[in-house]
Amino acid sequence: MLSNVRIERTESPKTKPNPEKLGFGQYFTDHMLLMDYSAEQGWHDPRIVPYAPLTLDPAAMVFHYGQAVFEGLKAYRTAEGGAQLFLPERNAKRLNRSLERMSMPKLEPGVLTEAIQALVGVDQDWIPEAEGTSLYIRPFIIATEAMLGVRASSSYLLAIVMSPVGAYFDGGLKPVDILVEPHDVRAVRGGTGAAKTAANYAGGLKAQAAAKEAGCAQVLWLDALERKYVEEVGSMNVFFRIDGQVYTPVLNGSILEGVTRGAVIELLEDWDVMFTARPLSIQELVQAAANGTLEEAFGTGTAAVISPIGGIRWNGQLYPINGGQVGELSQKLYDTITGIQRGMVRDVYGWTVPAVAEQEELRAGV
Amino acid sequence: MLSNVRIERTESPKTKPNPEKLGFGQYFTDHMLLMDYSAEQGWHDPRIVPYAPLTLDPAAMVFHYGQAVFEGLKAYRTAEGGAQLFLPERNAKRLNRSLERMSMPKLEPGVLTEAIQALVGVDQDWIPEAEGTSLYIRPFIIATEAMLGVRASSSYLLAIVMSPVGAYFDGGLKPVDILVEPHDVRAVRGGTGAAKTAANYAGGLKAQAAAKEAGCAQVLWLDALERKYVEEVGSMNVFFRIDGQVYTPVLNGSILEGVTRGAVIELLEDWDVMFTARPLSIQELVQAAANGTLEEAFGTGTAAVISPIGGIRWNGQLYPINGGQVGELSQKLYDTITGIQRGMVRDVYGWTVPAVAEQEELRAGV
Ligand SMILES: Cc1ncc(COP(=O)(O)O)c(C=O)c1O
Ligand SMILES: Cc1ncc(COP(=O)(O)O)c(C=O)c1O
Repeated sequence: MLSNVRIERTESPKTKPNPEKLGFGQYFTDHMLLMDYSAEQGWHDPRIVPYAPLTLDPAAMVFHYGQAVFEGLKAYRTAEGGAQLFLPERNAKRLNRSLERMSMPKLEPGVLTEAIQALVGVDQDWIPEAEGTSLYIRPFIIATEAMLGVRASSSYLLAIVMSPVGAYFDGGLKPVDILVEPHDVRAVRGGTGAAKTAANYAGGLKAQAAAKEAGCAQVLWLDALERKYVEEVGSMNVFFRIDGQVYTPVLNGSILEGVTRGAVIELLEDWDVMFTARPLSIQELVQAAANGTLEEAFGTGTAAVISPIGGIRWNGQLYPINGGQVGELSQKLYDTITGIQRGMVRDVYGWTVPAVAEQEELRAGV
Repeated sequence: MLSNVRIERTESPKTKPNPEKLGFGQYFTDHMLLMDYSAEQGWHDPRIVPYAPLTLDPAAMVFHYGQAVFEGLKAYRTAEGGAQLFLPERNAKRLNRSLERMSMPKLEPGVLTEAIQALVGVDQDWIPEAEGTSLYIRPFIIATEAMLGVRASSSYLLAIVMSPVGAYFDGGLKPVDILVEPHDVRAVRGGTGAAKTAANYAGGLKAQAAAKEAGCAQVLWLDALERKYVEEVGSMNVFFRIDGQVYTPVLNGSILEGVTRGAVIELLEDWDVMFTARPLSIQELVQAAANGTLEEAFGTGTAAVISPIGGIRWNGQLYPINGGQVGELSQKLYDTITGIQRGMVRDVYGWTVPAVAEQEELRAGV
């Protein structure tokens, strides 16, 4: 439970950006939420304050040893003008798993969702309305102790910032090609791959640039041990439909467990689609692409929801999938999940949660 | 070449800490050096300013995606009252390799050493005198663009901070036990292990805590692929003397290439000690420890120089090395390297460089 969130409202609200040109993560709302951790006081002093720079000692451990974890989720405007979150408690649980892996202090259950609801309450007029748009919410926690010894920090800062974001695809889903990275790896068993930590991203930028050069939108990561099994695609989990059966790589300790991945699996099971999580070798996949049994492939993640894959580039060759067209299952998953998120499809799974706590709705006069 | 370093001196110099109680990385000097990078201007505006907090947008990429690299080296007070650096150009080269791996912009040759010399010049009265003490220098570079897309930042900040540090061992070298980590790994081929980046450290804290619990001072990391070959010990490279021959793990893409490691190898070659860099399995090492042929083991790094290993704990068993005594070679390497660093042993290798540029020495009246 989060109590006593102090609120200091801005005296100079920003002009809102053009809703047609939001992009991703470029504009930030008027406020942010901060909370401190110290060994003596635990997590304390939650406060909503005007969005402003953070002030950190140059020796703050986050700059040197990388204790930094984050989450990403969205608030969606509903058909009736309300706003809702999608499975925020799964983000909260994953955040705690990430914190544990990185030797950082966990949050009490409920705290993350309540903090988000409090902040969305204050900045709810920042949630964009148009189809495909939403308010991206980025909670993150960083080590703040000013000390250069290699050990866990004794103090941390939790911050939540929010950014109105545009449609990932404008004008319907668009399949993209992906490049199988032959050399660099994202993560390995025993490492930090299953945590959502800053450490996992910067090392992938080089491969991402190589993918762009090869005309591909994303990297398809292989496992670090044998460079044989597919793991993730860019910052998304990945699914394949082969001969009517759906597969995704099994969680093996180096893959991030996506919230969207979980929702997709539940829908597949509910729809009686044959589904298996298991190791998937790149050979098996390109062979299936070549002989036409690879019917669909798609990435899943909060940003894109479902991102259809049009082709896999491997060893200098492009293996097209489904003639570069959006698959039937991809489209149905996208429509169902975005429908639930926007309150247009009834949420029989109980996946959505109000984005604004009730008192806050009243106070803001929504 | 670094030109036009603007200098703004502090008006309230700090009280210097008790030289007997320096510890490591706890106190910082009066000034720091900053330099900015932008896509348009490249690296620009080097300046020495009073040590003060950094101000960064909460969306600054370093907090989210971990583009952060650093270096660590020391300025040593010499017998004649001068001050010198040890192989700073090797740190500069490694910094550029780290920057490249993390998709960050490199520095021109010479810039890092000149920046360090300029800063040490301003704060040279912070270099402690006592044996074993030194001024630890921490250059680091972080991504500063305020944007949540996963791509390389377009702007960066270089900062150099300095900390007077105490003797790593007081009262002579002391062997420590190390724990072989069976599960977690530090790095893997294709990952970021050969770069000195924040990403490599936070993930190791959990194993470090487990080592402490088992009564060990450091973790002995195994390779990620087979968990069979030793890689590094804590934040040090590692050497073993077996039957009169010296071995260290060969650089395989997941090991950090230490500056001290390089100096040790050059000394071994100069001294005609039989030396080989090759894969070293943990089985081979504990067997050698058990049958008495493992004569010495030690870690190497800027902080400790040489850190003798008294025993290896593996699979619940402690394998003592050399009866827990400091080995002859360990002591000789320590004495030679620290002697060169402090100007007590003639630097026939050309490893040392003045810590203060000449004009600066004049101006400061040293
Ligand atoms: C590496 C990685 N994999 C997968 C995902 C998908 O996770 P989610 O569905 O929770 O957004 C993300 C996050 O967005 C990610 O960063
Ligand atoms: C992971 C790691 N290995 C080895 C070393 C030793 O390198 P150096 O001798 O340059 O200090 C360091 C740095 O101090 C390190 O962080």
